[in-house]
Amino acid sequence: MTTPEAREEAVLEAVRKRRRRVNDAIPEELPVQKPERLYEASRYLLDAGGKRLRPTVLLTTAEALADVEPLSTDYREFPTLYDDADANDTDTIDVMDAAVSVEVIQSFTLIHDDIMDDDDLRRGVPAVHREYDLETAILAGDTLYSKAFEIMLGTGAEPSRSVEALEVLATTCTKICEGQSLDVTFEQRTDVTPEEYLEMVEQKTAVLYAASACLPAILLGADDETVDALYGYGLDIGRAFQIQDDVLDLTVPSEQLGKQRGSDLVENKQTLITVHARDQGVDVDSLVDTDDVDSVTEAEIDDAVAELEEAGSISYANEKARDLVDQGKRRLEVLPDNEARHLLEELADYLIERGY
Amino acid sequence: MTTPEAREEAVLEAVRKRRRRVNDAIPEELPVQKPERLYEASRYLLDAGGKRLRPTVLLTTAEALADVEPLSTDYREFPTLYDDADANDTDTIDVMDAAVSVEVIQSFTLIHDDIMDDDDLRRGVPAVHREYDLETAILAGDTLYSKAFEIMLGTGAEPSRSVEALEVLATTCTKICEGQSLDVTFEQRTDVTPEEYLEMVEQKTAVLYAASACLPAILLGADDETVDALYGYGLDIGRAFQIQDDVLDLTVPSEQLGKQRGSDLVENKQTLITVHARDQGVDVDSLVDTDDVDSVTEAEIDDAVAELEEAGSISYANEKARDLVDQGKRRLEVLPDNEARHLLEELADYLIERGY
Repeated sequence: MTTPEAREEAVLEAVRKRRRRVNDAIPEELPVQKPERLYEASRYLLDAGGKRLRPTVLLTTAEALADVEPLSTDYREFPTLYDDADANDTDTIDVMDAAVSVEVIQSFTLIHDDIMDDDDLRRGVPAVHREYDLETAILAGDTLYSKAFEIMLGTGAEPSRSVEALEVLATTCTKICEGQSLDVTFEQRTDVTPEEYLEMVEQKTAVLYAASACLPAILLGADDETVDALYGYGLDIGRAFQIQDDVLDLTVPSEQLGKQRGSDLVENKQTLITVHARDQGVDVDSLVDTDDVDSVTEAEIDDAVAELEEAGSISYANEKARDLVDQGKRRLEVLPDNEARHLLEELADYLIERGY
Repeated sequence: MTTPEAREEAVLEAVRKRRRRVNDAIPEELPVQKPERLYEASRYLLDAGGKRLRPTVLLTTAEALADVEPLSTDYREFPTLYDDADANDTDTIDVMDAAVSVEVIQSFTLIHDDIMDDDDLRRGVPAVHREYDLETAILAGDTLYSKAFEIMLGTGAEPSRSVEALEVLATTCTKICEGQSLDVTFEQRTDVTPEEYLEMVEQKTAVLYAASACLPAILLGADDETVDALYGYGLDIGRAFQIQDDVLDLTVPSEQLGKQRGSDLVENKQTLITVHARDQGVDVDSLVDTDDVDSVTEAEIDDAVAELEEAGSISYANEKARDLVDQGKRRLEVLPDNEARHLLEELADYLIERGY
């Protein structure tokens, strides 16, 4: 029987090992070239850090599908799952390209979201529109957008599988935009239901986890049932991840978050917690007086969090996230029973047990 | 012998007829759906007008390649150029999807460019970030971006041709971003050479014409020589188009332009005209005193234009555009000698002879 701490450490070690490989691949796929300022701005957030959770999900899913020992196989030359009489025996898939593509999409959405939310900090460094300027930040995001498609086109997959992968990528991006649009609209509303909130989170956040989990299945040639189950796993853990993110925004010290704790409350952002609290009769809009992140005090945030705990809203969010993770883990039964699949289960747990 | 006026009218009529079909297809490919505000903003500029020159180039090139009578063939069910033993006889390509995709990319770039340039008007209506707001405009552009890829995936082309078409679309978008980035950088510089300017224009504007001309060749299955020649045609006429746009910004009344005449000069935008004039010793930065488009007078613009004419800069730009159009027309010799090909030649002439 392993302790929870040992389990978390094992997951983190697995994430770190893949992150290192992803970090090596990013400059290969996205070199700083002319015009340098544009590419430097495009790389700025990617180079500033990030846990690479989505690429980790993607690479680990590839390992589970191919039934290989974790980290034993070159991600650039990954074996396919199908026997094709026409195909050369040496045909392999560059699943690292798919992993980088997904991370590049994530980075593009962060750059544009920070402009829209007028956030100053991200990953402990200035947001791109602060470090550079608005024009450069818009353009850096736009560049990452098309680069993600270019990179996804480089996996070497058979054209019909490439087309399917690009369809997933394009529809995922559309849904992310729709989700972000709902998120902005919700800030003006006081009657958002938990169901509406979860739908928004599915579009804004979870679809990119869903894409990360199903893309290796598409590229390596798994059957439709497997593709669908993995998509569902990603949707479940992605929603759980966002709910946990909303919890952490209230409970983790600012320096650890890399931005002001409680900023969602200050900015009137809806979260599952505030939606639940409002349902319980809490006057959510009065929890924090200011709407300026720079002038809110820690004491104000402490009082707000105490009131949300009192209403049971934080426990409610924690339970919802736990249910989603359990549901997601059950979907992994389509995979061979191997070490990589267990890691995907532990990754799911980690997403809601992590402290930051 | 037809008169120039009759020729121009014939081209305009051909453009109008295709525009009508493109305008019908846009709401089919991009319906206003939930979240409505996002899709309304995405459609705003598309619905506000536009000559649909890029889709016209694309559709007419398809007609020239397939050697069909112009407007005789359903763009949604266009015949391929290849005999494929495996393919069903009824296999056809939806070249209208490709045409709409290109126009959607064009619209995305206009929305984001207007934010970057802080332009208030476009096509005679408020820019999207003025009619809506900054957040919605960024997101509307981002939505069009992924929608363009989704739409391009719907042509029904054989997967390897779809992959090639998507590669063209993705690299085209990357180049447009690079070109826009150069354009912004050039505003700070006084030593831009005509060669640098033309390279910027190639990336910012001409690549989308190049994509429009070569995409039907890729989708319908033309050989590489034809694809390359059509790409070259698009690059040539696209550069000529931008040069003419820069000339028109100085010479066409504001109400006809849909924005303030001379706005490029006021905003210190480099054009082939100002680059040439500076080379001739003209103090370009002092041509217009104000850098506020709302306060410039028609008299100031008139004086500036007179000085640029004096330096030979407007004639220089006109000649350069003419050379590019002639070069582009010669590249069309790879096509069958038919009515659609002649229309592509006349379209090239129209791009530099048009009055607005």
